[in-house]
Amino acid sequence: MITISVTREGEGETRVALSPETTKKFKGLGARVVFQAGAGDRSFLPDRLFAEAGAEIVESAAEAVREADVLLKVGRPSAEELAVLKPSAIVVAMLDPFGARDELEALAAKGVSAFAMEFIPRITRAQSMDVLSSQSNLAGYKAVIDAAAHFGRAFPMMMTAAGTVPAARVFVMGAGVAGLQAIATARRNGAVISATDVRPAAKEQVASLAAKFIAVEDEEFKAAETAGGYAKEMSDEYKKKQAALIASHIAAQDVVITTALIPGRPAPRLVTREMVESMKPGSVIVDLAAERGGNVEGTVPGQIVVHAGVTIMGQTNLAGQVPGNASALYARNLYAFLEPLVDKKEGKLAIKWDDEIIAGTLIAKDGQIVHPRLKGGA
Amino acid sequence: MITISVTREGEGETRVALSPETTKKFKGLGARVVFQAGAGDRSFLPDRLFAEAGAEIVESAAEAVREADVLLKVGRPSAEELAVLKPSAIVVAMLDPFGARDELEALAAKGVSAFAMEFIPRITRAQSMDVLSSQSNLAGYKAVIDAAAHFGRAFPMMMTAAGTVPAARVFVMGAGVAGLQAIATARRNGAVISATDVRPAAKEQVASLAAKFIAVEDEEFKAAETAGGYAKEMSDEYKKKQAALIASHIAAQDVVITTALIPGRPAPRLVTREMVESMKPGSVIVDLAAERGGNVEGTVPGQIVVHAGVTIMGQTNLAGQVPGNASALYARNLYAFLEPLVDKKEGKLAIKWDDEIIAGTLIAKDGQIVHPRLKGGA
Repeated sequence: MITISVTREGEGETRVALSPETTKKFKGLGARVVFQAGAGDRSFLPDRLFAEAGAEIVESAAEAVREADVLLKVGRPSAEELAVLKPSAIVVAMLDPFGARDELEALAAKGVSAFAMEFIPRITRAQSMDVLSSQSNLAGYKAVIDAAAHFGRAFPMMMTAAGTVPAARVFVMGAGVAGLQAIATARRNGAVISATDVRPAAKEQVASLAAKFIAVEDEEFKAAETAGGYAKEMSDEYKKKQAALIASHIAAQDVVITTALIPGRPAPRLVTREMVESMKPGSVIVDLAAERGGNVEGTVPGQIVVHAGVTIMGQTNLAGQVPGNASALYARNLYAFLEPLVDKKEGKLAIKWDDEIIAGTLIAKDGQIVHPRLKGGA
Repeated sequence: MITISVTREGEGETRVALSPETTKKFKGLGARVVFQAGAGDRSFLPDRLFAEAGAEIVESAAEAVREADVLLKVGRPSAEELAVLKPSAIVVAMLDPFGARDELEALAAKGVSAFAMEFIPRITRAQSMDVLSSQSNLAGYKAVIDAAAHFGRAFPMMMTAAGTVPAARVFVMGAGVAGLQAIATARRNGAVISATDVRPAAKEQVASLAAKFIAVEDEEFKAAETAGGYAKEMSDEYKKKQAALIASHIAAQDVVITTALIPGRPAPRLVTREMVESMKPGSVIVDLAAERGGNVEGTVPGQIVVHAGVTIMGQTNLAGQVPGNASALYARNLYAFLEPLVDKKEGKLAIKWDDEIIAGTLIAKDGQIVHPRLKGGA
């Protein structure tokens, strides 16, 4: 029988890698589920719900981890957890593969097979496992809600007896999953929305949400879409032209949401101090790339700062601020990933190591860092 | 020439009684406008905009007030302002007529004519002067935005590759101006909405916003609508039946917004501690009646507290948290009130003391408190 274990996350993390729903599903696969007491508290999921779904509740992380064949986490396992983990176990989590290398090495050295959910390939079969999509979607929603909460005016146009309240102007930079949900949320709230992206494909998606697309649309722009669907980095010349266009556009905006990330690299700088200072007092910028250094000059990761009357929000875990949904979706992503790895008849793991999804996410095995995107980086 | 003066408000107040727009309009009436430097800063309205509109900018409140024929304020004038105010001046502000009586007496003793904008009669001609409406509308909007920002899940139903995110359930108690805007805002954000009110007329309005109406609809309910459009207090028996219905309803809600106020009386208690405790952890209550003691057991005016996992928000000046709009609309309300009082030919005030709006709002004159609703209360 497979033992699946879930523990409390570290300080800044509100999410949990299991939900009562996925507990039931794992039980349905014939697995044993061990859950550390309190691990769901910050997602408003009390132990009782997990117990009712069939999980064994244990007090300490060590108790939960010791017998684990599968350790499910949101972030990297702690050193204490690694210390008691069986080398035959697998770890499935957002391992931040481009983050602190020494912690990654320590994880590998343990001998476990470690899967980084950030590396789920963008193929149809893996859509239900795509943690970046599920979490970015919520982050895009929360970015707009937070912007609205900090903005000194209302978003929608309102016709009142005392006259009209004008709609807010919201500009979304980067129209990936987070950006598109930000556009949708700002639209729900009645704002006038524009958006930009370096991928020409984004133009249609932006237009489909009734937002105006803002970009220098030259030859380079048209050639910029990469196979993987991620933004590639543009030339300096293009960036200069785009920055000039963006600069004049930003000066007239009330709210700017930036979402530009390039995997494995620092976040591109999209908004300069000068652009921030060109905005009206009371405007708000939400920098969804804060964790990777930020798209905005003046962003302080994890903090809300005011510069020249403009609020710059640099929260680093926005999905984690709607933990009820974030945990539910993340847990479903993990279940979708694990379900095909379980041999229900034998009651054990049966991993096809050459499967595209397995090979694409496996970053450590048999004591080594094995992922091609990580091997050169030591 | 009439001198209209505006000064900085006290600590907790972000709003200002003048906007660049109304400055221009007052200038158009032939008035002189004197504006204390910095008075618009917390509404993101820099002095420059007022100067461009024709206001004279002065450093101190005393300079602004000394020559005032009309003193426009958001809240009550300070003792320092009263000390230099001419007895012939008029004061127009939200004077909190049922609040601290001794301050009201001090204001009256000064000999000025003081108008309480809260008393603007609910007649068609005075709609554009109705500060309670203009500010409640914004408060209702902000209540929902703040609830969304503090709620541990998203408001709208979302269909994602990892499955569906369910819509949040929002319950609005009191369907006046604030409540109706709260319903509209929650609806924009995709929540499933229900609402209640003691006035039968509210049922139609709630239904017109596609929210479900929750009330014990007996004879008393049907008889409860008062001429003024405000809610009158219901019998204990009705309250008991309604409380039982509400109690079972609240247990299934994610967000509760309470907006019940009875002029001149403490806010009615609508949500008991037991009801709060029946809600799921992570739920949010916004108590728009916090300033009058609150509709919710456990509300702490001016604070956000968590009780049994439920966040209870007791901010006391929600309109002031969207000061850009709140000041603009409040300033328009004041202009609409003042404009008919100005004799443009003679360049002086010409107040018709027996006009319904004047008589309805005048609370002090010639050293006395004169308003019928306040004369008995000393």
